[in-house]
Amino acid sequence: MNAIINDIEVIKTKSSKISEVDFSNLKFGNTFSDHMLVCDYKNGKWQAPKVVPYQPISLDPSAKIFHYGQSVFEGMKAYKDANENVWLFRPLDNFKRLNISSKRLAIPELPENYFMDGLKTLLQVDSNWIPKDEGSSLYIRPFVFASGNGFHASPADEYKFIIATAPSGAYFSGKVRVLIEQKYSRSANGGVGFAKAGGNYAGQFYPTQLAVEKGYQQVIWTDDNTHEYIEEAGAMNIFVRINDTLITGPTSDRILDGITRKSIIQLAESEGIPVEVRKLSVHEVVAAAKDGSLKEMFGAGTAAVISPIAGFGYKDEDYDLPELEDTYAAHLKKRITDIQTNKTDDPFGWRYEVKS
Amino acid sequence: MNAIINDIEVIKTKSSKISEVDFSNLKFGNTFSDHMLVCDYKNGKWQAPKVVPYQPISLDPSAKIFHYGQSVFEGMKAYKDANENVWLFRPLDNFKRLNISSKRLAIPELPENYFMDGLKTLLQVDSNWIPKDEGSSLYIRPFVFASGNGFHASPADEYKFIIATAPSGAYFSGKVRVLIEQKYSRSANGGVGFAKAGGNYAGQFYPTQLAVEKGYQQVIWTDDNTHEYIEEAGAMNIFVRINDTLITGPTSDRILDGITRKSIIQLAESEGIPVEVRKLSVHEVVAAAKDGSLKEMFGAGTAAVISPIAGFGYKDEDYDLPELEDTYAAHLKKRITDIQTNKTDDPFGWRYEVKS
Repeated sequence: MNAIINDIEVIKTKSSKISEVDFSNLKFGNTFSDHMLVCDYKNGKWQAPKVVPYQPISLDPSAKIFHYGQSVFEGMKAYKDANENVWLFRPLDNFKRLNISSKRLAIPELPENYFMDGLKTLLQVDSNWIPKDEGSSLYIRPFVFASGNGFHASPADEYKFIIATAPSGAYFSGKVRVLIEQKYSRSANGGVGFAKAGGNYAGQFYPTQLAVEKGYQQVIWTDDNTHEYIEEAGAMNIFVRINDTLITGPTSDRILDGITRKSIIQLAESEGIPVEVRKLSVHEVVAAAKDGSLKEMFGAGTAAVISPIAGFGYKDEDYDLPELEDTYAAHLKKRITDIQTNKTDDPFGWRYEVKS
Repeated sequence: MNAIINDIEVIKTKSSKISEVDFSNLKFGNTFSDHMLVCDYKNGKWQAPKVVPYQPISLDPSAKIFHYGQSVFEGMKAYKDANENVWLFRPLDNFKRLNISSKRLAIPELPENYFMDGLKTLLQVDSNWIPKDEGSSLYIRPFVFASGNGFHASPADEYKFIIATAPSGAYFSGKVRVLIEQKYSRSANGGVGFAKAGGNYAGQFYPTQLAVEKGYQQVIWTDDNTHEYIEEAGAMNIFVRINDTLITGPTSDRILDGITRKSIIQLAESEGIPVEVRKLSVHEVVAAAKDGSLKEMFGAGTAAVISPIAGFGYKDEDYDLPELEDTYAAHLKKRITDIQTNKTDDPFGWRYEVKS
């Protein structure tokens, strides 16, 4: 069953699980494709990547991933168009960001061809796992973690880079209500908030649980010093529309440089929508909600694409957003997904075809 | 080979590795004992813990530990006295702190008897792995991590609690030089800095590497907003002696509530050493170094016990500490290790005997 594709060794599964999958009823990220890409870092370098059957990973109990949180990841999607051609969206940006994250976490950076050729090979091998239905896609999860051993609190000497994929439906269903956080924080100045580091997510779970108990689905994080400025929503960057202007906070060492975020900024500007990338205070958003100039809020990220926000809570008050007919959120989501799924032309050169 | 000890199932190894170990030449945390305690959380509850041979852990590639950093740990030590009796130091404090960390990371809290009876049983089974030499001990690593699967950024539904042990020598050898950090940060207000969360450690590795390249062994973290106040050293709390007063920062949601730290405060106070627990500015430490009133700095933690600091760097200037004959560091280290190893009486009730 072994083969060499794009110079990458491929060991195919002997028993595909694809017939067990109901592609018309996919959830998010809990059904896994037949294969994965695996690449080991040892003896001071990344070894040749391989495509192998999706299978458990065996680690020593002292592997540093269990103790010191040394892990980074990316989120991407592959789409199949009406002609069964396969498309990625700005994949090199994910590759570059993975290495930016890795550097901050003292993880060795990956060679570009290991990432890109590995990903393409994996998608070729598992191309029948890429859903065709509207709103579905193959969610792609590249991740790197410390597999080297020892209880000393220092970087590992061995790592694993893996790409696993999951045919997936929507991340959120419907609009979300969010809580503007005033006690807990996601990241520090000079910290790792800009990196897609595992530890950034675990720290959000408990405050998010508290928000869920109060009837919200997500937390909007604010700066840890004053809680006065809106940062991001953890799995999404945040956009606010006041009158006709779309506003989002600048990226920083606390905020992820989202690929959907920057694509939306570029798309909106190209259509003449006034866009402001600047610090956005909670005070300004609350004032706009009160005087009726707050028209929309939405989150933007690979998993959720664009997720409209129905309302927000702030200091025990709830604020509802108006229900508009024509929203920036719906328009920009259609524009970006049409580009992603090859339903329209691609003036920005964002699409990337994975040839079979 | 199965047995029930303290109501805990014990599956003993068929081939002990102990004869391969040079107990007179131990490093820190890279030799592992024959057994480990394993306890699984599934179906909404912690299952009965078991002692099993130390062995690899097998996890799905989507296990949340790889992606979302949901992990917490503790560090403890077991000592063997001249009569071969086995002692722990304030183990209930480690248990309580593990649950405090778990709660903040949205990990289910452990029952006390699973932790304490599990730990005692493991030490009884592997009692011949506890070193007897001065300065050596059995380092104990309890940890909990998310073993449940799925790419959705939310808490896992399954976890593993493991205790592994490693006969160990000193964590640092000799005095360390430290860099007072002015750019990077360890933790945010409202973040997870007080928890022993894996992600807190990974974020320190890169800035520490930069410090090592400049000739320092460790970083002293400052607050992320002003970098003006001394927080902790990541693996150690920090004490400063100015004239005859011992000063350490207060614990907060950014600083670990160290067990060695609080023991040192109590020991020093009991001996009439003036102790101040208050915010300590870098400015004050630099001024004291310049006028000669800065007598000592040292780190305190389970792994390093008390680690004297030879000097520090701050804004491209280096400051050396004086070489005193009688230091608080040496005196307090002897006091605490004498209590830990049953060489003296224990007025505070800190020692905990593990009966064989």
